[in-house]
Amino acid sequence: MRKLFQEDLHNLGDKLHEVVVLVHQAMGKAYRAFETANVHLAEEVIADDVQIDRLQAMLDEKAVELLALQGPVASDLRLVVGALRMSTSMERMGDLARHIAQLVRLRYPEHVAEHSLRRVYQEMAEKDILIAKKLVELLLTRDPQLISEIESLNEQINDLHAGVFITIAGDQWTAGGAASADAALTSRYFERFADHGVSVARKVGYLHTGELNAR
Amino acid sequence: MRKLFQEDLHNLGDKLHEVVVLVHQAMGKAYRAFETANVHLAEEVIADDVQIDRLQAMLDEKAVELLALQGPVASDLRLVVGALRMSTSMERMGDLARHIAQLVRLRYPEHVAEHSLRRVYQEMAEKDILIAKKLVELLLTRDPQLISEIESLNEQINDLHAGVFITIAGDQWTAGGAASADAALTSRYFERFADHGVSVARKVGYLHTGELNAR
Repeated sequence: MRKLFQEDLHNLGDKLHEVVVLVHQAMGKAYRAFETANVHLAEEVIADDVQIDRLQAMLDEKAVELLALQGPVASDLRLVVGALRMSTSMERMGDLARHIAQLVRLRYPEHVAEHSLRRVYQEMAEKDILIAKKLVELLLTRDPQLISEIESLNEQINDLHAGVFITIAGDQWTAGGAASADAALTSRYFERFADHGVSVARKVGYLHTGELNAR
Repeated sequence: MRKLFQEDLHNLGDKLHEVVVLVHQAMGKAYRAFETANVHLAEEVIADDVQIDRLQAMLDEKAVELLALQGPVASDLRLVVGALRMSTSMERMGDLARHIAQLVRLRYPEHVAEHSLRRVYQEMAEKDILIAKKLVELLLTRDPQLISEIESLNEQINDLHAGVFITIAGDQWTAGGAASADAALTSRYFERFADHGVSVARKVGYLHTGELNAR
């Protein structure tokens, strides 16, 4: 029985890894759709998000089943509870990539982003994608250095996010209501993606330290 | 030991109730601050959110401790896992009330909302506050009728949210970039609050049915 249990735990870790790989792909693809106003790519991101949701649901069922059948303790329990928490954040990251794609679809054939903001969105998106990439790595290696790197990327994104609002409020900004609303939401989506990334990263940290509610 | 365990479960239920009462107050106060551009009230909401976060952290610790020490099964396990999930959503609801308050503080002494949108925000906020009130009731009574009522309120809020974006994109809309961005974010915050409310409500439903990942 002990062996089966370890296998189940590994299985849970594999599923987490699988979800975060999909999340990484989703944001990569969502940003390419955004950058090039590619509605087909946007549709793909929207369709693929169902797969992330499904995997997350399976992962959660598996975790609860493990709790029920195996009654894990100590570090095993932390892993299972950690998986439950992480999967929620990962699923949200997938949603945020989908929200970007939905904006692309809504504005097609126009670009979502005002020309003056494209550069800053590029920076935000690249950092988001890098965060997701580092999460994939973190789940494999558990290297705590990656957690600090993800936190630092998140801080940079927060600064870029603040910058977007300064731009929107500035005298140079002549875009209309819809474009301003899009600009605010786009920035918010990129920023929230990074927040959830930090949240997942710290939860991986928690698997090690056992400290609860690390943020 | 069995008795202690039941006591612990009740304790967990009480804490959930306590958090959702605070969330209800937070949105009520945030909206009053928003409606009247009252920066002092906004500051209170921002300060009070720390209390929600702290309670949520305590609740989560308690839940994990219960899983570790008692190894609950069946409906007890569902309650504990449900509590973990709900507390996350409740904490986000508190954050969203805080975001509204932060917008009030940012724009003070001006109003955040354009005059033409105040009425629709009032409707959204009143429905949000009603959702939180129904959640308080739901946790006490477990009356499934409340879940449908919350879902229906959420749908109404989604329609109002869509309406805000139509207004912002319309010819009558003459507000500048910052006001448009604020308008979009405000609407988004009210809408997300309701989404999380539905999520909590369905999780209470899950405590009854045992069906996983009900949304």
